[in-house]
Amino acid sequence: MKLLKVDTVKEVEKKMEQHFQCFQVNSEEIHILDALGRVLAENVYSAIDLPEFHRSTVDGYAILSKDTFGVSESLPNFLDIVGKVEMGERTDLCVESGKAVYVPTGGMIPKGADGVVMIEYIEQLDEKTIAVYRPIAPGDGVISKGEDMRKGDVILSKGRRIKPQDIGALSGIGMNSVKVFQKPKVAILSTGDEIVDPKGKIKFGQIRDINTYALSALVMKMGGEVIYKAVIKDDYQTLKRVVEQVIDQSDLVVISGGSSVGVKDVTAKVINDLGDPGVFVHGVAIKPGKPTIIGKAKDTAIFGLPGHPVSALIVFQLFGKHFIDQMLSIGAKNQWIIEAVAGSNIHSSPGKETYQMVRIIEENEQYIAKPIYGKSGAISLITQADGYIKIDTNKEGIQKGEKVRVTIL
Amino acid sequence: MKLLKVDTVKEVEKKMEQHFQCFQVNSEEIHILDALGRVLAENVYSAIDLPEFHRSTVDGYAILSKDTFGVSESLPNFLDIVGKVEMGERTDLCVESGKAVYVPTGGMIPKGADGVVMIEYIEQLDEKTIAVYRPIAPGDGVISKGEDMRKGDVILSKGRRIKPQDIGALSGIGMNSVKVFQKPKVAILSTGDEIVDPKGKIKFGQIRDINTYALSALVMKMGGEVIYKAVIKDDYQTLKRVVEQVIDQSDLVVISGGSSVGVKDVTAKVINDLGDPGVFVHGVAIKPGKPTIIGKAKDTAIFGLPGHPVSALIVFQLFGKHFIDQMLSIGAKNQWIIEAVAGSNIHSSPGKETYQMVRIIEENEQYIAKPIYGKSGAISLITQADGYIKIDTNKEGIQKGEKVRVTIL
Repeated sequence: MKLLKVDTVKEVEKKMEQHFQCFQVNSEEIHILDALGRVLAENVYSAIDLPEFHRSTVDGYAILSKDTFGVSESLPNFLDIVGKVEMGERTDLCVESGKAVYVPTGGMIPKGADGVVMIEYIEQLDEKTIAVYRPIAPGDGVISKGEDMRKGDVILSKGRRIKPQDIGALSGIGMNSVKVFQKPKVAILSTGDEIVDPKGKIKFGQIRDINTYALSALVMKMGGEVIYKAVIKDDYQTLKRVVEQVIDQSDLVVISGGSSVGVKDVTAKVINDLGDPGVFVHGVAIKPGKPTIIGKAKDTAIFGLPGHPVSALIVFQLFGKHFIDQMLSIGAKNQWIIEAVAGSNIHSSPGKETYQMVRIIEENEQYIAKPIYGKSGAISLITQADGYIKIDTNKEGIQKGEKVRVTIL
Repeated sequence: MKLLKVDTVKEVEKKMEQHFQCFQVNSEEIHILDALGRVLAENVYSAIDLPEFHRSTVDGYAILSKDTFGVSESLPNFLDIVGKVEMGERTDLCVESGKAVYVPTGGMIPKGADGVVMIEYIEQLDEKTIAVYRPIAPGDGVISKGEDMRKGDVILSKGRRIKPQDIGALSGIGMNSVKVFQKPKVAILSTGDEIVDPKGKIKFGQIRDINTYALSALVMKMGGEVIYKAVIKDDYQTLKRVVEQVIDQSDLVVISGGSSVGVKDVTAKVINDLGDPGVFVHGVAIKPGKPTIIGKAKDTAIFGLPGHPVSALIVFQLFGKHFIDQMLSIGAKNQWIIEAVAGSNIHSSPGKETYQMVRIIEENEQYIAKPIYGKSGAISLITQADGYIKIDTNKEGIQKGEKVRVTIL
């Protein structure tokens, strides 16, 4: 095996940004109710002023605010009711000093008025007269035309993952459909002579495939689409043939390595033989995940991940997410970090970034991160994990009680 | 309007648990690759021991650990190679003292051996001999049968929302399908004479519907299914007729109120007239969201939410989520809270739980929560919000720099 320089996570991310900078997915127009969790392919601008007219934010009387100056509980002012605004309808009424027009919440403010006094602060003396007991300032009870948003304002930015409230905002400005990125297409291969698909009986000595399932679900969660998944034998010819079959339709081909010696070489050799530039990351200074391979051929990204489920999950959570986020123009702030305190001492590996799976428990509004240990490859490790913490290369482990930042899985 | 006691959030949740305790959704069996984000309807037990045989966790030689006692770089022990275990295949080899059998990672440990010494710590002298330079303890390099999980162990519990790694674990124990709860069925109505569907031109004075869209998306995010949504006039007859049409197929009917005076009475009257027990919450001590109504009729939950989008979102985030979580048997710990510091002073409303929308920015690995203010009903409020903070009833606001806990929207 050729000795290659092991990269740090930062170096890997930088190389990925360089090699994949021209990678792009097309956009498609979809209905806003189908858009939850999808990613905006362009800025959304408001085509209207919102509100489109001066609107009342309360139930009350539209008046001239100066008619209330100096009024109080003991010294009200008396105003003449000259009309009523109907909900959802235009009004041609005009309010002059000494007059008042009833306006429901959301109703149009009649000309002349510069505020609305809430019905709680008036008393209706008869059909034609109200007494006002509280002063209002100009603008009270009114949301002005364009105060919420102006025509041409950016409402939501390209690269935003659409949330429920965004869908409400889009409908509020009259947008029924929205342009989102198509989902990046990912092919997932798991290599290993002993690995078999989970359905049905297996032969003694065989191991049921975990990685294509876990990685497929991760791809979906990150906003990608799995177009192919398979368990294949880990020899050069088979791997090359299958990758050649899927590479043209894929934005990313993920190969999670079998666990026998020498498989890593096969993956790297296949990538290199498929075209330039081939492998550009061969080994990363992280634990777990050191034998990670990243390359490019035929304008498709190809990842070689470790075979152990925990390692494969962590590496894909780092670099798979970085790749998909890059393709979807998703910015840096797109995953919340949970603050917790370490529930016990946690060791690190000198010279490597260490990723430690943790379970989180809550005690008195305080999260406690408990490291989960177990033999490599154990499934119970990943079902117990709520997330992981990163220990920097130069940090010598973490003390019990120390603050940690947990990335949720 | 009848004066009713305003409940606290805790009281509302308790009443909901009582009234809806017999509410249940059926389960359905689905493929594990369709199960991401769905909720387990029963515990998942392992039908197998995992691993199903003693397996090696490293590439190396299966040996008797006592053959390495006292060895060192300068004083190796020499062992005879008596065979090789093939990946994915059973072996009948037996290791005796002074012997060694090659085993790849994941391979079966031959009888007799109680540990595996990694190839890094041996030197192969010839085809038949290795020198071992490091001692191992019994069990080193081995994961025993059932060590990861035992037949009958609970792998994943009822009420768990399925994560990517869970799908890997399910495939790892040979489960191709899984029993999940069907999605609770929700009908969403928005009432208001001035509210219109967003598509197309609207008349002056009309307002585009936000709530049925935002609430639909929230329901989907929470794991429910929207079976009906409509904007309707806010009169008693229309509302009663539409609710009667949808109530039998729905687990929950959500009515977000129009903004004109008296609509709240209409919603309450419709709920009461549809059957017992009718309205059991009429007003909640929260801001915003005071006029919230919760009731039950014809064995269906019915919510009356405020018409303002921010209020409707917050109330549904609290009580809609509580209802759906209850129907799906989802336990308490199912939403992560972000710790932040307040970016400015935040006021509260005495005697009420105050919910304040905030935007979160990150500075030096520290989240800062900035309150978002704006006139009631403004859409820009909800698109800027990352989440909200809760200020307890008896707390007089929050000081700038104080720790706050943000629930992400």
